[in-house]
Amino acid sequence: MVVLSCGAAGGRAEHAVKPAAVVEMIHNYSLVMDDLIDRGAVRRGRPTVRVVMGDSIALLVAMFYRELLDDLIENSPASVEVRKTAVKTMKEIIDGERLDLLLEQAGRTDPYLIRNRILDPTFKSYLDMVGKKTASLFKAAGQMGAYAAKAETRVANALGDFGWKAGLAFQVMDDVLDVCGEKTGKQQAKDIIEHKLGNAAILVAMRFLSRKDRQELKKIIGSEKVSKRMVARARSMVNKTPAERECREIAMKYLEDAKTSLSVLKPSSFKDALSDLADQIVARSY
Amino acid sequence: MVVLSCGAAGGRAEHAVKPAAVVEMIHNYSLVMDDLIDRGAVRRGRPTVRVVMGDSIALLVAMFYRELLDDLIENSPASVEVRKTAVKTMKEIIDGERLDLLLEQAGRTDPYLIRNRILDPTFKSYLDMVGKKTASLFKAAGQMGAYAAKAETRVANALGDFGWKAGLAFQVMDDVLDVCGEKTGKQQAKDIIEHKLGNAAILVAMRFLSRKDRQELKKIIGSEKVSKRMVARARSMVNKTPAERECREIAMKYLEDAKTSLSVLKPSSFKDALSDLADQIVARSY
Repeated sequence: MVVLSCGAAGGRAEHAVKPAAVVEMIHNYSLVMDDLIDRGAVRRGRPTVRVVMGDSIALLVAMFYRELLDDLIENSPASVEVRKTAVKTMKEIIDGERLDLLLEQAGRTDPYLIRNRILDPTFKSYLDMVGKKTASLFKAAGQMGAYAAKAETRVANALGDFGWKAGLAFQVMDDVLDVCGEKTGKQQAKDIIEHKLGNAAILVAMRFLSRKDRQELKKIIGSEKVSKRMVARARSMVNKTPAERECREIAMKYLEDAKTSLSVLKPSSFKDALSDLADQIVARSY
Repeated sequence: MVVLSCGAAGGRAEHAVKPAAVVEMIHNYSLVMDDLIDRGAVRRGRPTVRVVMGDSIALLVAMFYRELLDDLIENSPASVEVRKTAVKTMKEIIDGERLDLLLEQAGRTDPYLIRNRILDPTFKSYLDMVGKKTASLFKAAGQMGAYAAKAETRVANALGDFGWKAGLAFQVMDDVLDVCGEKTGKQQAKDIIEHKLGNAAILVAMRFLSRKDRQELKKIIGSEKVSKRMVARARSMVNKTPAERECREIAMKYLEDAKTSLSVLKPSSFKDALSDLADQIVARSY
């Protein structure tokens, strides 16, 4: 996305390689830390760093990786803008992770989480969380591509906005696939098992459920141990509602907004490719 | 130390405030992470971040703190040099922590540590570890003070060298106080309880012990559970040797070397204060 954004902003692809690596490293850094927080054992079909090395060493690996990231930024084109964007994005991702944890309804003993848990999230608070957790990195990808192309602010803002909206569409679809998907290649209904109320499909379903069903769904998500039967029951409740269709429509709306953001750009194969990429985000079934 | 170094290099104290805060933040960042790794419950007489907030949130706090550090660097005088030094120093501290863990003889399950544990450390490998873990931050303090003063390279090198040597003296004394100290205000013989062979007093004592006693001391440090009686036995073995005196001499030698590094600086009250500070590092009994 960084490379395509750079091209769409009139820059040369090779100038986008280092900024693209910055985005990838921010992502990897957050994943190693995320797996420490969630005790994740498998990532992209392979054992996580914490499983291979141990928790203490995984933490040191991630910390060292953060410092290597600074070296990469230092040597990147547009390093001042890239650094500013990288740091801002990492702060947002970290805060998004905090909000995601606050939306978990069970399974944690952290005093901070127990004191501050969000018991009745609005869709707005959900969007705040996923904006920070997910869309911020997509936004950074668009912006960094523009910076690599030495594009004017108007273009950088447009590509950032494209990324932001595409990121929201991506996460809403990710949530739908988690709860409603059949053959996604991931563990089914992981969010329900992990007590996450910060899932678009669940939050939208809540609106359509009876008071009684809503309470039951909340109780399942808030149970310390979520059994297979409870997962099946929760999924069937969500699937009785039009949550999946509604979420697809929400994602589609963000997708259209994302494409509209591209309108300030001159026509190019890069611009078309960005548009296609956004389509695939919503069309994907895995 | 940053403020004194800045003054000794002919700079104004107020220019050193932000670089000094950078050093303090690097230190705090490493401590929050260190407490996660060591499951530390008390730090400076107060509950650690992980105890107050929980492990997951403490990790996010430390990550966020790392990004705030970048903002501070960005707004610091001599920000280019300060950033380069900060990043290099953090890499060294992280690697020093890795080596410190590799010198632990029990108590960890991380696959990496079990595979790579250092069973027979030399004093040289000890110095490599403490140079990275401790002296590197002292070195950074001296260097950043010089950068804040816009000092020439020769002066920055001298102050960095002063910090490095003073840092080694500090850590050797810290190790001695841990094992041989009586009223330090800290838990006695924490390094023995935590299976750490990376302690100067223990490593020097090894040289003087009989083969049999050496094996016994190693066995105590390598025991999964180190009882009070075992701690007392280990301390008495170390105290039978001239380890404490030898270590004080080693520290004194680094202290003298540190002061020699200051000889390139013009006479000033700041230079004298740095010299006094170094003296106190070795003279302290807490």
